[in-house]
Amino acid sequence: MHCQTAPVGILHSDFGQRFGTPRQGIMAPSSRATLQLLPKYRGQDMLSGLEEFSHIWLISHLSKAQSKKTRGKVRPPRLAGKKIGLFATRSPHHPGGLGLTLARILKVEADTLYLAEVDLLDQTEILDIKPYVAPADRPEQFRCGWLEGVKVEPIPVSFSKVSLEQLKNLAQIKSGEDLDRLRRLIEEVLAQDPRPLPYRKLAEGQFDTILSDANVRFRFSAGAFVVDEITPI
Amino acid sequence: MHCQTAPVGILHSDFGQRFGTPRQGIMAPSSRATLQLLPKYRGQDMLSGLEEFSHIWLISHLSKAQSKKTRGKVRPPRLAGKKIGLFATRSPHHPGGLGLTLARILKVEADTLYLAEVDLLDQTEILDIKPYVAPADRPEQFRCGWLEGVKVEPIPVSFSKVSLEQLKNLAQIKSGEDLDRLRRLIEEVLAQDPRPLPYRKLAEGQFDTILSDANVRFRFSAGAFVVDEITPI
Repeated sequence: MHCQTAPVGILHSDFGQRFGTPRQGIMAPSSRATLQLLPKYRGQDMLSGLEEFSHIWLISHLSKAQSKKTRGKVRPPRLAGKKIGLFATRSPHHPGGLGLTLARILKVEADTLYLAEVDLLDQTEILDIKPYVAPADRPEQFRCGWLEGVKVEPIPVSFSKVSLEQLKNLAQIKSGEDLDRLRRLIEEVLAQDPRPLPYRKLAEGQFDTILSDANVRFRFSAGAFVVDEITPI
Repeated sequence: MHCQTAPVGILHSDFGQRFGTPRQGIMAPSSRATLQLLPKYRGQDMLSGLEEFSHIWLISHLSKAQSKKTRGKVRPPRLAGKKIGLFATRSPHHPGGLGLTLARILKVEADTLYLAEVDLLDQTEILDIKPYVAPADRPEQFRCGWLEGVKVEPIPVSFSKVSLEQLKNLAQIKSGEDLDRLRRLIEEVLAQDPRPLPYRKLAEGQFDTILSDANVRFRFSAGAFVVDEITPI
């Protein structure tokens, strides 16, 4: 039994690889993304009216985030090793491979949406866009199970002198890129601890991720992240 | 460009046909639905942990709700004739045919979810289940565009003597069916005015819908609905 669907557009986001893509867009308010409708949907005013909404749902196809095997129970990073049913989590490894993201609308221009607070990889296929409708989407009373007791302390982030120089150069190369935004984006992504669970047990480690077309090299040491290098890719 | 996905389960709901299925589940709090995972996903504790959540998202395949032609702009019933971009609405006729429903969890038993506040047709294919996670899904500040100014007055609903007798008989035939729930369900569905826009201009009209395996025949007259007959199907 299969269902066929098709994308309405391809998202362009800051996140060049799975490692470093935030688990929740709202934790990376400085992230930016654009979504232009595919040619067949352009020129028909299909986005008109969305400019008066603050948020939209993106239903996406997480083809690049998929692992091959579906497990019945998983260990969410925030539960520090405890297992929970796959469908009681927002893990990207649900069967079906669909993602659900609430994104903030910055601007709507003809057939293009400009978004913030996105937790999706660059080039993600968007299968549908739906406006955030408070009466339907915002229950008055609610309980969020295992997530209610979980509090994640942000990890301190600092930048090496070299990386700050590189960041300045990068902003000059990429005209229009906002130096402060990129710096905040790196801080937001690292503060949430992008490391997979097994790596969190290690006292030290060096990592690379791609943020806004820059390779960000950073290391974990003494309970904090230090950004060593920021180079264009 | 196509994406393939597959259902994780088939929903059983009160709504036997498209006409009469509520536009928002929250407007039909008496609606009930069950969702059992497909055999390949059973026996793996995939729902464990969901019992401590109040709500879940259902991403569904609206194959039966689809119209063949996608229009760029549509007239939502609540806008009384005004057109708005398709993607600025929760119309079931988006390209891709995906639905997004927030449902209330009543109970979780092994591989079956018991739900309320569902706006989906009986036999809808559910492609994914995701828990409602307030930090990600509940923005502190939000705006809901054209929906903010819209207020829908419920339409008065009354029952004929015959229909109330039939309702009693029905509850006896279908052991376990709750007479009061079925009556409330009918009231909730009709109060929201299930009639398509063109029919709302008519002063009179007779209609049938299927709710919880009963054919409900009702008429609109003098600004109110009267339920004439309720017969088992």
